[in-house]
Amino acid sequence: MTHTIADIAAALGLDAAGDTSLAVTGVAEPADAAPDQLAMAMKPEYAEALPKGRARAAMLWAEADWQGMGLDAAILAPRPRYALSALSEMMDPGQGYPRGIHPMSVIDPSARLGADVSVGPFSVIGADVVIGDGTVIGPQTHVGWGTSIGAGSLLHAGAKIGARCTIGARFIAHFNSVIGNDGFSFVTPEASGVERARESLGDQGEAKGQPWARIASLGGVTIGDDVEVGASAAIDRGTVRDTRIGNGTKLDNHVQVGHNTVVGRHTLLCGQVGIAGSVSIGDFVVLAGQVGVSDNIRIGDNVICGGSTIVLSSIPAGRVMLGYPAMKMDQHLETYKALRRLPRLAREVADLRKAVSKETPSG
Amino acid sequence: MTHTIADIAAALGLDAAGDTSLAVTGVAEPADAAPDQLAMAMKPEYAEALPKGRARAAMLWAEADWQGMGLDAAILAPRPRYALSALSEMMDPGQGYPRGIHPMSVIDPSARLGADVSVGPFSVIGADVVIGDGTVIGPQTHVGWGTSIGAGSLLHAGAKIGARCTIGARFIAHFNSVIGNDGFSFVTPEASGVERARESLGDQGEAKGQPWARIASLGGVTIGDDVEVGASAAIDRGTVRDTRIGNGTKLDNHVQVGHNTVVGRHTLLCGQVGIAGSVSIGDFVVLAGQVGVSDNIRIGDNVICGGSTIVLSSIPAGRVMLGYPAMKMDQHLETYKALRRLPRLAREVADLRKAVSKETPSG
Amino acid sequence: MTHTIADIAAALGLDAAGDTSLAVTGVAEPADAAPDQLAMAMKPEYAEALPKGRARAAMLWAEADWQGMGLDAAILAPRPRYALSALSEMMDPGQGYPRGIHPMSVIDPSARLGADVSVGPFSVIGADVVIGDGTVIGPQTHVGWGTSIGAGSLLHAGAKIGARCTIGARFIAHFNSVIGNDGFSFVTPEASGVERARESLGDQGEAKGQPWARIASLGGVTIGDDVEVGASAAIDRGTVRDTRIGNGTKLDNHVQVGHNTVVGRHTLLCGQVGIAGSVSIGDFVVLAGQVGVSDNIRIGDNVICGGSTIVLSSIPAGRVMLGYPAMKMDQHLETYKALRRLPRLAREVADLRKAVSKETPSG
Repeated sequence: MTHTIADIAAALGLDAAGDTSLAVTGVAEPADAAPDQLAMAMKPEYAEALPKGRARAAMLWAEADWQGMGLDAAILAPRPRYALSALSEMMDPGQGYPRGIHPMSVIDPSARLGADVSVGPFSVIGADVVIGDGTVIGPQTHVGWGTSIGAGSLLHAGAKIGARCTIGARFIAHFNSVIGNDGFSFVTPEASGVERARESLGDQGEAKGQPWARIASLGGVTIGDDVEVGASAAIDRGTVRDTRIGNGTKLDNHVQVGHNTVVGRHTLLCGQVGIAGSVSIGDFVVLAGQVGVSDNIRIGDNVICGGSTIVLSSIPAGRVMLGYPAMKMDQHLETYKALRRLPRLAREVADLRKAVSKETPSG
Repeated sequence: MTHTIADIAAALGLDAAGDTSLAVTGVAEPADAAPDQLAMAMKPEYAEALPKGRARAAMLWAEADWQGMGLDAAILAPRPRYALSALSEMMDPGQGYPRGIHPMSVIDPSARLGADVSVGPFSVIGADVVIGDGTVIGPQTHVGWGTSIGAGSLLHAGAKIGARCTIGARFIAHFNSVIGNDGFSFVTPEASGVERARESLGDQGEAKGQPWARIASLGGVTIGDDVEVGASAAIDRGTVRDTRIGNGTKLDNHVQVGHNTVVGRHTLLCGQVGIAGSVSIGDFVVLAGQVGVSDNIRIGDNVICGGSTIVLSSIPAGRVMLGYPAMKMDQHLETYKALRRLPRLAREVADLRKAVSKETPSG
Repeated sequence: MTHTIADIAAALGLDAAGDTSLAVTGVAEPADAAPDQLAMAMKPEYAEALPKGRARAAMLWAEADWQGMGLDAAILAPRPRYALSALSEMMDPGQGYPRGIHPMSVIDPSARLGADVSVGPFSVIGADVVIGDGTVIGPQTHVGWGTSIGAGSLLHAGAKIGARCTIGARFIAHFNSVIGNDGFSFVTPEASGVERARESLGDQGEAKGQPWARIASLGGVTIGDDVEVGASAAIDRGTVRDTRIGNGTKLDNHVQVGHNTVVGRHTLLCGQVGIAGSVSIGDFVVLAGQVGVSDNIRIGDNVICGGSTIVLSSIPAGRVMLGYPAMKMDQHLETYKALRRLPRLAREVADLRKAVSKETPSG
């Protein structure tokens, strides 16, 4: 499928320049671009690689000198990375799941499927499931009894969704993602060592082994609109009420969200983030890869945590954090600079002690 | 399905008070409770939310003033969280997997299935598999050649169990969990940089690239009774003997247990815990979320590690640990308090050096 | 199946001693070995356990006194762990997937399968897929539209491979592994708090919520020969060009490789390693379990990172690193030794300040 530069620019609401009737079949990095590909040269340093490729047209920043780069045409974007969003959607060939209801799927007769719903081979749709219009359910997926999924959603191969979950429109579940498995909730007959160590900050008292009794998860998972759950990610169902994920929130691969946790709107949980149970996370939060959050923590709106930050206590809105345990990022950078110098500092203190004790022999 | 307050209290062995003939259809959090739901108000701070809901009955702590809360009936538990275990089991509607052997499953003729075993659609049961009575095998699961699974077990959709594993009774494998994949074991023709860096604590000598030769995993996985493995968790098979998990041990989502590792009884491995190969973990251990354990480490009975603790050396029984690298929790708290003040300490030492050098100009 | 000691030694190119006509049926640890099993006593400390078992033959180190151990025969290896590689391959009974094309699989008519390709039950092979000779595709797998997989590969149950990926020979995908899911790439209409916090190292300016726009992943994943991807691991597709994994590189369980990342040859990424997007990792690198790498980082050849190292800035070739944030391993060990003494150091500085202020009251 080909698009002219003029058509692409019009679709993206951007300015085009040069021979805008030129047609492209796809996009490429500048050094790899064939003559029929649109080069993604969104920053001056990327544009430097244009001569290595054979692009005749490129997506560039607003004030770029496209003619000086030897191009025949250009699309000029004030924020090219943002423009890439619409452009990439336009160019995306997708996973190519076949449309229609595959005969080798198992769909409970009580399930209600909207218009133009597809169900791939080897998928299972449980009793009383409701699927919104146009949703594509890929192969080898499972949608449990009583769950509803909104219109325009996409379940990739192997996604598993448990019973009694409520999911909004335009939901995307990536390969082998899991929504609505049981929470990890166990209790001992008497107070456990963990309970005592938490109270005392480190002393579990007399260690005494007790077997764990299981607490079943009676709640489900409620997910808003425009949510995405990454490959092999997992969202536990709640104990009594639902675990909740707000509109527009995105979870990357291997993210774990514990039972009863509430995540706000437009929040990003990056790869391998782990959220324990009963956590509250605000709107517009960004937790970078491998961030860990202890149970019963509150993270305010607009908080940003850098990679692998470990959150052991609550964070007020708007903070930027880093480290284990989490500190304000500027404080972390200063502290760890001092930490690298700590062996030298220790030697300086030893020298000072000698010097001072020499001066004051009586002490 | 409804239960009277009297029936629930009797089943749980607890005291009931008020109009115990009152029937409830399920449980709810205090603020959300409908008149036919039992409110879970297990602590005074939860009970404060009762007026926001419409509960007529609640589960409360032993000495709670249920009449003062305006309730018609109450169940009084000396340890309400423990009571929730049996109550939640009683109320759990489960995932609703259909019973019986689904025609679209593939079961090797040599497999022996006990009484009342269910096998869901698109599941595969290999040769010589043995499944205990009453076990429910959900859809899209795989049980490899020669594996046995005890009675009363539950495999959720997408669980994959490799060949020649031995699993006890009442086992629960959550969505997309993995038991018995090959271990991650590779070796170079000559000593590798990793081997040299371990010996020298940081010097790999002359770095020399060598390709990795694979070591196959000839062992399996042996799992005791009452074990649970979380969504997308993985337990590697052993190299020569089996990897082993003891009775009553529970693994949360995304937990990784490496080849040859031995985990004791009644131990909890919380979300995203990573255990390398040939580790030994005792009984009644609790490793909180994201804890990491290096290979060949020994962790004694009753050890507790807080969230994201990184264990690089062995831990004696009964210790409570935190941090990277792991320290005793009280020492960690003191050390990190000092760390936050380290930039100030460095300035104080700089000032002292100036003061002392002024006094002892010849020094 | 049995093998004589002579046959095994010949196959491994090693010396055999004693009654080399003795036949064994498998391998075992020294203490567990039956008379017809070859004991793996590859170090003197392992050989000490031989008397607890009943082995008549063992794999030993080159100069071992096998007669003094009471054995009838021995295989003597200069580097026994390396010899275990070929031995374990010889003894591996595998997962026992049935051969041939299972009737309950879905294979697009346009897919081209080489000679002796097997496809297990409930697997899906998309349009225009190319599968090399002798490849075994286990049950419940998915190979997306336009993907090619080289000869002699093995896809374990539940592996999911997305569309338009290019994979070399002798590839192994473990249970529920994921290759070629969409990258985690989102952008805000205006500069986000994350962009501002990165520039300022910690200040996001006025926190302002913006919804995230999705960037589709137009690239695929290119994987070399002899690559292995662990259970529940995930490799994201690239945004414009492919994410790339070099020949001989091995990924353990739960590893995450972000979009556009390039991993070199013969590199090991151990359990739960997380690599963000657009990272470059060299050849012969070893990242131990739970290592995290931020986006746009470069890691040179032969770098070794110890368990849970967090890489927030680029690492030159040949370095051995540890810690959060990553330091050279020897520096890390010295620094953390000093950190443990930090509370004492702080008290010493406080004492010094008192001592010095007494001496210099006017100071």
